[in-house]
Amino acid sequence: MSELVSPALIQTLTERLGAHRVLTAPEDIVPYGFDGTATLKQRPLAVVFARSADEVSFVLKLAREHRVPVVTRGSGTGLSGGSVPLAGAIVLCLAKMDRILEVDAANLTLLAEAGAITQKVFDAADSAGLFYPPDPGSMKISTIGGNVAENSGGLRGLKYGVTRDYVMGMEVVLADGSICWLGSKCVKDVAGYNLRDLFIGSEGTLGVVTRVLLKLLPKPAARQTLLATFSAMDAAAGTVSAIIAAKIIPCTLEFLDKKTIQCVEDFAKVGLPRDAEAILLIETDGHAAAVADEAAKIAELCRAHGATNVKLAADAAESTKLATARRSAFSALARLRPTTILEDVTVPRSELAGMIRAVEAIAQKHNLNIATFGHFGDGNLHPTILTDERDTEEMHRVELAFADIVEETLKRNGTITGEHGVGLAKKPFLKRQLGDNSFELLRLVKRALDPDALLNPGKIFD
Amino acid sequence: MSELVSPALIQTLTERLGAHRVLTAPEDIVPYGFDGTATLKQRPLAVVFARSADEVSFVLKLAREHRVPVVTRGSGTGLSGGSVPLAGAIVLCLAKMDRILEVDAANLTLLAEAGAITQKVFDAADSAGLFYPPDPGSMKISTIGGNVAENSGGLRGLKYGVTRDYVMGMEVVLADGSICWLGSKCVKDVAGYNLRDLFIGSEGTLGVVTRVLLKLLPKPAARQTLLATFSAMDAAAGTVSAIIAAKIIPCTLEFLDKKTIQCVEDFAKVGLPRDAEAILLIETDGHAAAVADEAAKIAELCRAHGATNVKLAADAAESTKLATARRSAFSALARLRPTTILEDVTVPRSELAGMIRAVEAIAQKHNLNIATFGHFGDGNLHPTILTDERDTEEMHRVELAFADIVEETLKRNGTITGEHGVGLAKKPFLKRQLGDNSFELLRLVKRALDPDALLNPGKIFD
Repeated sequence: MSELVSPALIQTLTERLGAHRVLTAPEDIVPYGFDGTATLKQRPLAVVFARSADEVSFVLKLAREHRVPVVTRGSGTGLSGGSVPLAGAIVLCLAKMDRILEVDAANLTLLAEAGAITQKVFDAADSAGLFYPPDPGSMKISTIGGNVAENSGGLRGLKYGVTRDYVMGMEVVLADGSICWLGSKCVKDVAGYNLRDLFIGSEGTLGVVTRVLLKLLPKPAARQTLLATFSAMDAAAGTVSAIIAAKIIPCTLEFLDKKTIQCVEDFAKVGLPRDAEAILLIETDGHAAAVADEAAKIAELCRAHGATNVKLAADAAESTKLATARRSAFSALARLRPTTILEDVTVPRSELAGMIRAVEAIAQKHNLNIATFGHFGDGNLHPTILTDERDTEEMHRVELAFADIVEETLKRNGTITGEHGVGLAKKPFLKRQLGDNSFELLRLVKRALDPDALLNPGKIFD
Repeated sequence: MSELVSPALIQTLTERLGAHRVLTAPEDIVPYGFDGTATLKQRPLAVVFARSADEVSFVLKLAREHRVPVVTRGSGTGLSGGSVPLAGAIVLCLAKMDRILEVDAANLTLLAEAGAITQKVFDAADSAGLFYPPDPGSMKISTIGGNVAENSGGLRGLKYGVTRDYVMGMEVVLADGSICWLGSKCVKDVAGYNLRDLFIGSEGTLGVVTRVLLKLLPKPAARQTLLATFSAMDAAAGTVSAIIAAKIIPCTLEFLDKKTIQCVEDFAKVGLPRDAEAILLIETDGHAAAVADEAAKIAELCRAHGATNVKLAADAAESTKLATARRSAFSALARLRPTTILEDVTVPRSELAGMIRAVEAIAQKHNLNIATFGHFGDGNLHPTILTDERDTEEMHRVELAFADIVEETLKRNGTITGEHGVGLAKKPFLKRQLGDNSFELLRLVKRALDPDALLNPGKIFD
C-alpha cells in the first residue's frame, strides 16, 4: 500500500521540510533501520527530520492521509527494538529538535526539546547548581525524548527513581496531528486525568512527545563510592538485602559478575578484582555527615555478609572512574562475541539471589555464555548473552534460554522489562505477564488514541 | 430511568450482598449524599457495601445491565464533590474493605484494601520501622482508595511528593466488571502502558480501585520543626523562595495567615503568635546532622528575610503539637461561620507572593472574609471563604470571588486544583486550564474506558 503512494507523499514532505530533511536514498536511510537491539533491522520507506511540533503535526496528518505508519526516533540507542521501523514506514527523527529551552532555578524545572541529549540536560542542570538524576547507560548519546518514550532507568534508580519521576509536563502531538500540552510547573496538579504518565513509556505508539518539562533537584552536597568484593554471588545478593533491611537506600547499588568484571577490567583498566566472583559498586550521596555515616554502615554490612574486601573511593575522581567502568559493561561485553543480547528482567528485591542462581543454571542448561550485571538495588538484572547471530544452532539455544529466563522472572512476580521497554523484543511475553484483562485494557487505550494504528505499529503488542 | 428499574435491581443486590449491605431507607442513605465539600448534596438511589473485588464486579455488571450510574466512595472526606452522587445513582461504598493485607519489609511495600484508613496505613508502616509519607489533612478518617482516586497531597509534599508517588500497583474493576491488576512489586517495570497512573486521580470515573500496593521508605532518623513569625505576608513568601534558592527542600513548608493563626490558636491553644501577619511552619527530616544543619540554615534565612521571631521546637512532642495545630486549620476556620468554602489553587512557586496579594485584593473587592493557609513550599494555597450558604447575596459574591481566584491562577500558569480534585466544584474551569485539545483527549479516554458513562458521571467534565 504505502510503496504505491510514496512518490506523492515524498514530494509533499520535501516541499514542506526541504530535500535535506527528507531522506530516501538507500545509503542514507540504512542507519535508521536499527537501534541498539541485536539482530533486529528493517529499512524504512523514508526518514524525515522535524524541527517543531508544527512540523511533527504536519507529518502525522500527511501520514494519516496516506495511511503510512510513522516510527518516531531519537538517537536509536534503544534496547528492545522500539524504534526499529516496519517495512513501508516513515521514520520521524527528532534528533534536530535538540535545544534546552529553559532552566528555571526558582521553580526547579528544565524545559527541553525531545531531541536534546540526556547528558546535555544533566549538564544544563548541573551548571545551575541543580541535578537531573536519571542516568541511563546511554546518556551521552540518548535523547531525552527517547528516555521518556521508554521510561529509561539508570544507575541512580534505587534512591532517585526513573525518568517518569522527573517529567512534570510535555508537549505531545496526537495521531490526528493535534498538539496538546500535558502537565505544568506546579508541583501538585490534579486537574483532570494524568495523561502525561500514559505517554511516558508508551514507546511512540500513542503520540509523539516534542517537548519535556523536567523536575530538577538540588545537587547533593557529598557522595562516596564503595567497591565491595565477594567470592560468592549469594553473599553479594545477601548484602543487598541486608542494606535495605538496615533502612539504607544508597543512590547506586550495582552488581557485576565474574565475566563482566573481567571484561570491564580488560576494557577500562580501573583496578577491578579480576578473581572476584562478584562485586558491588555502591554509592551514597547527600549531606556530608549522612554520607560518611551511611558509607561506614554499608562497609560494615558488606563485611558482615562475606565481602572479602571493601574499598572506599579516595576522592571524586576515583568515584567517577568506578562509575564509568560500570557504565562501560555493555560495550566491554560486546567486544567478546559478534552478537550481544542484553536481557532486562526485574524481580522484587527479595527474589534477587534466587533469580541470579536461576540465570546461572539456565546458562549451563543451554551451554551458553551469559554474563550478568545490573542494578541490584532495583532488582533489575541484565543477563547478557554473548553469541553469534550467524550460528543458527546457537541462536536457537539463545531463544530457549531467553524464554527460560522470562519464565523464571514471571514465576517470581517479576517483570519482563525493567527499563528497556517491550518494543519488539519482549512483545511475545507481555500478555502472559499482564494477564488477559490488563492486556486488553492496553489495546483498548491504543485503539482509542491511534484508531488507524499508524503510530509505531507492531510494537508492545500486535 | 433508574427509578423505574430500581425494585428488581435492589432485590438482586440484596440477594447477593445481604440486606444489611444494601441501604435504601431515606434516613440511612442521607449521610451518603454529601462529602466534605460545602453546599453540594444529592440523595442516591441506594447505598451498597462491597467486601471484595468480586462483589464490586458484580455491582458494576448489574448497574450496567440496568444502566444505573455508580458513584464509588470511601469516607466521604473529599473537598471537590467527587463522591457526591447524581440523582438515581447507586453509591458503592468501599469502607468495609479496610484490611491492611501485607507489610513486606524486604521489598518496602504495603498492600491494603481500598477502604483502609490512611492513618492505619501510616501506622502499619511505622510499626515495621518504615514510613508512608503522604499525609492529607483528613488522614485520620480518609481511606487510601479515596486518596488514590483524588491523588491526595498533604503536608509533606514538598520533599516527599503526593499519593501518586507511592502507588506501585493496584487492583481495579473496570466498567464491564473485569478485574485487572496493574503494576508490581518491582521498583522498575516498563512492561506496557502505565495505566496505573491513569486511574490515580481519576475520581472514580474510569474504574473502581479495590486494592493498592504502596511503596514505603525507611523512617527518617531525625526531624526538627521551626516556627517563623512574620509581620508581613510578602516577607514570608520571600523566605520560601530564598529557602528553595538555597537548594534546601524541607519536608514541610506550611503557611498560615493572620486570620487562620487566630482561629487555630483559639481552637488548639498551642501558643501561636496571635498578632503575626503570617507564620511559616517548617519541618526538615533525615540524618541528624543534616537536620541540624538545615534547620540552622533555614532559621538564618528566615531572619535574613524579615522573620521577627524564629522558634525551634524543643522536642518531638512540641513538633507534633505544632503540626497538629496546622492540621486543624480547616476545622478551626469552619467554626467561624456556617459555610466554609476551601479553595485549592496551586501556582509555580515563583508566583506565590503575587498570588497571595491577588487573593487579598479579591477578598477586599468582593467584601468577603477569606483566610488563607496552605502548602507554601508546593505553591499550593487554600484560600478559605467563610460565609453562609443561606445568604444568597453573599453567595453570589462568593461565586464571583471564586471565579476571580481561578482567573488569577490561570494567568500565573497555575492549576485550578493542586490536591482536592476537579469533582463538581472545579468542573466549570477545567477546559480553560487544559485547552481544547487536551480536554478532548480526556473525554476520549473516558469514552474508551466507560462507554456507557456509568462510572461517577458528571464529574471532572460533562
